[in-house]
Amino acid sequence: MLIVGERINTSRKAIEPAVRDRDVEFIQKLAKDQVDAGATYIDVNAGTLVSGEPEALEWLVKTVQAAVDAPLCFDSPSAVAIERAVAVYDFSRGKPMINSITAEKDRFDAILPLVKKYNTKVVALCMDDTGIQQDAEKRYEVAKNLVNQLAAAGIALDDIYVDPLTFPIGTGSDVGLAMLRIIEGIKNEYPGIHIIAGISNISQGLPIRKLLNQAMTVLSMGKGMDAAIIDPMDRYLMALIASTRALLGQDDFCMDYITLSRGGKFEGL
Amino acid sequence: MLIVGERINTSRKAIEPAVRDRDVEFIQKLAKDQVDAGATYIDVNAGTLVSGEPEALEWLVKTVQAAVDAPLCFDSPSAVAIERAVAVYDFSRGKPMINSITAEKDRFDAILPLVKKYNTKVVALCMDDTGIQQDAEKRYEVAKNLVNQLAAAGIALDDIYVDPLTFPIGTGSDVGLAMLRIIEGIKNEYPGIHIIAGISNISQGLPIRKLLNQAMTVLSMGKGMDAAIIDPMDRYLMALIASTRALLGQDDFCMDYITLSRGGKFEGL
Repeated sequence: MLIVGERINTSRKAIEPAVRDRDVEFIQKLAKDQVDAGATYIDVNAGTLVSGEPEALEWLVKTVQAAVDAPLCFDSPSAVAIERAVAVYDFSRGKPMINSITAEKDRFDAILPLVKKYNTKVVALCMDDTGIQQDAEKRYEVAKNLVNQLAAAGIALDDIYVDPLTFPIGTGSDVGLAMLRIIEGIKNEYPGIHIIAGISNISQGLPIRKLLNQAMTVLSMGKGMDAAIIDPMDRYLMALIASTRALLGQDDFCMDYITLSRGGKFEGL
Repeated sequence: MLIVGERINTSRKAIEPAVRDRDVEFIQKLAKDQVDAGATYIDVNAGTLVSGEPEALEWLVKTVQAAVDAPLCFDSPSAVAIERAVAVYDFSRGKPMINSITAEKDRFDAILPLVKKYNTKVVALCMDDTGIQQDAEKRYEVAKNLVNQLAAAGIALDDIYVDPLTFPIGTGSDVGLAMLRIIEGIKNEYPGIHIIAGISNISQGLPIRKLLNQAMTVLSMGKGMDAAIIDPMDRYLMALIASTRALLGQDDFCMDYITLSRGGKFEGL
């Protein structure tokens, strides 16, 4: 299970000023805390800075990789920003992840060369020039078309992380089932491919959001999701992910589960 | 989702003396507390009393149904004890559940007539005269044979609750997957049938058991489990079940989820 720590994102209140002011200490602590909590990738996103995004993203990459050994996830729709980030990336820590490509023609054509040139992993969002399909079967078709295009371009399935897109469950009772159906379908159709999701959108507008986020994470893992963009500082969520790995046969003899427990990671839960 | 409250069971330390002493107040409070917490059935089990079981079970039925309106689940392998219980049961509250029948010839022949005579629901445990199969495919075959026998005897699928049996995940990494495979297979093979499980056995011998119990409950619901024998006083588990129902499209407009939240059921979680 790949855990992408989502906290370094300028759309979060405390983060934008820290990035604007180039607050090295603040950002590095955020990176370290997430790795300590179990993040295996660190997402960096400076999208709200608009024209300042490419420079800020480059600074974030340098700053974060000076503090932690984890590989990074460049979170931007902009090829310009991503190229600035990847150009200064230290590849010795493992492949970075570009977040994200879509089947929109312009975005696909701009991002694909970066994935190929730098040999990165890539998040594939299930949308194209018709927009985002709410209907499960239609969105599933978009997902397959995108994967087929990536595969035809020579990207290995093992480097592709399909993001089924998460809608708020408050907007329709079938939203959760649609997402699970896409996860299961893609996993069955393309052995070796990965599924990633930013689950927390599922709970938008509802009370005690963490409950819905936790349940949806477990359900999605049950269908084959093997990567998640989450807040690793949510200890209960991380504990449920460790439990789910054990239950799905991904943690031999429950060794990771027991190690986490002995290390105090479940204390007070 | 059917929630069978499991607390009135003489194998629990505090319960056996209360049943031996016929402590009406204690037992009735336990029944009421479980119903308040969301139990839709109340399990009664006096198995540890051995020769005193039939009389104790009859007393439990009378005592519990004087306190709450919920239907009951008679939890015993003994046809004698179950017949004592069902004979005094107040059917106006809905069908009781006999917990359980198996494909063991003697037990099948003893319990089936009670299910038919009293028109009850029945829990079908996946075991036969060869014992309990650890292997998923073998246990799945036992499950299908049992369901086929029950159906051939005229029991409606809607009255059958298949229990896939839960083994501790600490005894083998494939134990969880085996259980999920049986749930999914039975649900697909017999539309309209139900799946029930006593999940908590999954976590035996491991630390912070509730985490594994909660994750396994959500995973099992994702495969089609629609009844659980659990401790409804575990508020976090009940909250995750409510979340999972919403995510699986079983709670239109999240009305139950929102009602529970407004009623304070998620407070402090």
